[in-house]
Order: sequence, then C-alpha cells, then structure tokens
Amino acid sequence: MGALHAGHTSLLHRAAQMGHDKIVLSIYVNPAQFGLAEDLDSYPKTWDGDCALLSKLYPELAQGVESHGWNGGLQMAVFAPTTAEMYPSGFPGQEPDSKGSFVTITPVSELLEGTTRPTFFRGVATVCMKLFNIVQPSRVFFGQKDVQQTVVIRKMVQDFCMPIDVAIVPTVREERDGLALSSRNVYLGTRRRAVAPVLFNALRATEQVYLSGATAAAELVPAALKVILDVMEQQMKLSPSEGVMFEMDYISLADPDTMEEIEEVDATKGAVLSGAIKMLPVFEAHESEDLGLGKGPPVRLIDNIILPPRK
Amino acid sequence: MGALHAGHTSLLHRAAQMGHDKIVLSIYVNPAQFGLAEDLDSYPKTWDGDCALLSKLYPELAQGVESHGWNGGLQMAVFAPTTAEMYPSGFPGQEPDSKGSFVTITPVSELLEGTTRPTFFRGVATVCMKLFNIVQPSRVFFGQKDVQQTVVIRKMVQDFCMPIDVAIVPTVREERDGLALSSRNVYLGTRRRAVAPVLFNALRATEQVYLSGATAAAELVPAALKVILDVMEQQMKLSPSEGVMFEMDYISLADPDTMEEIEEVDATKGAVLSGAIKMLPVFEAHESEDLGLGKGPPVRLIDNIILPPRK
Repeated sequence: MGALHAGHTSLLHRAAQMGHDKIVLSIYVNPAQFGLAEDLDSYPKTWDGDCALLSKLYPELAQGVESHGWNGGLQMAVFAPTTAEMYPSGFPGQEPDSKGSFVTITPVSELLEGTTRPTFFRGVATVCMKLFNIVQPSRVFFGQKDVQQTVVIRKMVQDFCMPIDVAIVPTVREERDGLALSSRNVYLGTRRRAVAPVLFNALRATEQVYLSGATAAAELVPAALKVILDVMEQQMKLSPSEGVMFEMDYISLADPDTMEEIEEVDATKGAVLSGAIKMLPVFEAHESEDLGLGKGPPVRLIDNIILPPRK
Repeated sequence: MGALHAGHTSLLHRAAQMGHDKIVLSIYVNPAQFGLAEDLDSYPKTWDGDCALLSKLYPELAQGVESHGWNGGLQMAVFAPTTAEMYPSGFPGQEPDSKGSFVTITPVSELLEGTTRPTFFRGVATVCMKLFNIVQPSRVFFGQKDVQQTVVIRKMVQDFCMPIDVAIVPTVREERDGLALSSRNVYLGTRRRAVAPVLFNALRATEQVYLSGATAAAELVPAALKVILDVMEQQMKLSPSEGVMFEMDYISLADPDTMEEIEEVDATKGAVLSGAIKMLPVFEAHESEDLGLGKGPPVRLIDNIILPPRK
C-alpha cells in the first residue's frame, strides 16, 4: 500500500537474496480492505518518496541478485494500478453485504482482526488473487507483522491450487525499543510513540514464559496482560498533559495454521502470539507538542511473536 | 462432470478446430455445486464409457489440430482429481453458510438457477478457479446450454484478471425434436422424453416474436408461456397412465452480461431467453414401461436461446 519503510524493503532484500532476477512490487491502496469508518482517506500516500527510495535501493538489490551469477541483472518493476483497473466491473463497495466478485477464506478471516474489520481479509484475499493473476509470480513475499494476513494468503494459495510459493519475512523493528515498523506509526507523535512499545513488551513477556517451559494459555497469556495493565496504570497516574490512554483489543494465543485460539501450545506446531491495541488521541497537548501526522488520530497497532515448535 | 455426450465432445471439437494442440478435459463431479437435497449420489458416473468415447474420438480431433500445420500432433489429457485433491483443507460442505475458501460472484449467482440452488454458482466458480490454476489454460471452453454459468465464468475471469480466453460453444440438440443434450436426460424414460421438448419449443415461440420485430418483455415472454400452458393442458386431459406432469420454474428474458431481468431488449446487446422446468415422476406406469435410469426421479431441465443484437 505504499508509504514504504524498512519493513517493506526487507521483502525486496529477501527476494534479491534468494536470487529472483525479476521483482515486481505492487503499490495499491486497496479500498476494499478498508471499512466504511476506517482511515482510507487519510492513509499516507507517498508516491514520489516511494519511487525515490526504490531508485536508491536498486543497485544494492541488483548486487544481491548478481551474486547468484545471473548475467541479465535485476529487472524490477512497480505495479501501481488504478481502482478501475483492479475492479473491471466497478468497485463493489466496502459494506459486508456488497455485491461483487470476492474471494472469502473462512473461518480464519472472521477471527481476531476480522472481528473489528469484517471486510478486511475479504478485501485482502480478493485483491491479492487479482495481483497474483496479473503478475503471475513464482513466489510472493509478505511480512510477518501482519501474521493473520499471512495465514489467509497461505490458505488461499493452497486451497485454490495456485502454483506460487509464499515466503514470510520477519518483522522489522525499531532498534531502540522494538516497535514494529508500520506505515501508521507516523500518526503517533512523540508522546504516544514513547508508550507504543507496550504491545511488543507484553508479547515478549509471554515469550519468556514459553521459553522457560510453560505451554498452557492460562500460564502464558497473563504475562502479557500484566505488562499492558501495568503500563495503563502508570499512564493513568500521570497528568492529562503527560499521560497516554490506550485500549487493548486482544492478546491471542493461536494455532499457526488456523489462527484459532488454543488452550495449550502443541509442541510440534508452536503457536502465534498476537495482539492489538488502540492508542487514543492525547489529552491536553502542549502548544509545541508533536502530535503526529493528521493531528494524532486514534491509531490501532498490531504485533506478534511466533512461539516456535519444541521438538 | 463426466457422463459425456455430444454436447461435451463439441467443446473438444471446437478446441481442436481452433488449433489447440494441448487439450485437457476435466472430469470431476464437484460435490460443492450440489445442494444437500440434490442428486449428487445418483448423478451418472460413467468413467469407463467416457474414456472409451475419448479414445475413439482422439484420431478425429488430432486430424483437426494437424490441419493447422502443427507437427507435434495433439496432446490430450483427462484430469480427474479426487475431492481430497481439489479441497486441500478438507471439503467445506454444501450448506450456504459453510466455512471454507470460496469464490463468490454476485449478484448474478443469486438469480434464476441461484434462486433454487443457492450454493450452485459458488461451487462452480470455486472449482473452476482451482481447475484453471492447476491446468493454466490459455482458453477454456464452456457450453452455451448452461448460459448463466457462462456469465459467471466470464465475470470471474474478468474480475480476477485471469489471463484466459473464455469460448462459448453452441448447445447441441437432438436432431428429431431439438431437446438440448444433458447428462440428466437419461432419467426421463420414454413418456417424459416425448414431452421434454416443451421448454425448447416455448423458447422458440418467443424467438419468433423477437425475430418478427418485438422488443418488449410483455410481448415476448407470453409467447413462451402460452406454449407451456398449452402442453400442460393437453397432458392433464390424458389419463394418469399416459399423461406427464411438469412444473415451470421460470421463463426469463435477461441482460446477457448480468442475467438481470429486462423490460425491453436493448437492440445493441440482444438478450438471453432462458427457462427451467421440472418433470415430475409419471403416474400409473405400465408394467413394461421404460421409466428412465433410477426409476424416473424428478428431472429438472434447463435451456436457453440467445436473442441476437439488432444492429
């Protein structure tokens, strides 16, 4: 969807490192995956900056490909279609009961992110089916950060017998505090940015409990919840001109193939530990306070950690 | 779905005549396109006969291809997968609210055949998406007889940007009375077979009115209805050991791109005139009467005629 950051470019690096000498990057802010009340209009669109970044990146990527001994070098394209091109029968609308041509992958699309965003994964699967049919890639690259999306895409490719390999690339994080890169981070502003790593810290607390041997959700999940509740409490003690309010949407311990909640981690499969929080606008902003792009609207953040199988 | 007849082989002939030197025929009775109360279990499965027919047909098809000057001759394959292969995550079931990976094409799938068979076109579109992804054809061939299916497939190919050409091949009919060939005709038996052409005769009556200049549904549709009602009346006058009972499901005058009912035929587009009837089991069968395969269950018949554009 553009607004490229190091998370996106890590997908390009991975593709080049694997020796792919034809790489197509799609930049398309797909309206079908936004709900009616969501931030489609304000979603950052940064075409010129994105292109400049890609031009600068090209020589480095080409070098990666050439190290595989390809003579022809790297061919790289940006595919940036219009909505008229992606929806030849007209855009079907964003309502759950919209008429049109859709791919639906249930029950996974109804869980977690799908609870608050009922048309989101239908929009994602539908547009990816089109993009895959147009580009005809041998391999597609998706970021681990949107973990439920990776499960939906894997299932779509498997169930529709698509001759495509799905590669998942690890989440890229800010070095200083581990915040997962996201195009939406620009909306946070300084005060909320400082608190935003709470989600990753919560997930890491549960990861520690898992690595020390626990497997029951009843032991694992409370560790994350405690971190979140502690930070909420700290923030509430601060004055309205200093504190940050946020809501917890979910902390989930799920089966990695289905994203269904589990009571116990299966040692042979591991689990997906994921969460979502919503940062509310700040109260009593200082006069010169950096509120973030668009005066600091509510920002929903998601993150996840894979709990690996124990053989 | 197998039970091959001259309607199916006309698709192969057309492909060969167009010079395609690699032809894949799929034979798969897809449970997802049958409703819970429909005739999946009794649907004719005639694998050995189908293969014998195809072997016999091969030299003739190969000749068609060779007339295009190909040296390699014709490569022809039958793709006959199992349900486990076509549904890698398990068969999702036949209920309208089944969970699984589906392609839905609305509103066209909800009209006409979709009214009585709410999961039919979802099943068809989903399995065709899989078949297309597996076989990767440059062109697919469908019969005109299932006209709403051709609209669904065309829309799917267009909306999902599939690099596939869709070729529609005219309906093949019995020479003596014009009954459209169908794998389900074997269920009719002699008595109902004699009455079955009523649907095609009704459609032809409307076609005549169209060809003589009428364009309003109010003028066109009654001509078909009159034929159907006349035959119903004749049959009701016969004794229960001679007469045939049938129900009319619909006679439809529709837009050829959407299958939505129209009040007036657009001279630049023409229209699709289609219908469905249900032949009921016969009453008071004679001792030696040929009731058709499976003792003559209810048989639903569909047919259509394209009313061409008037330039």
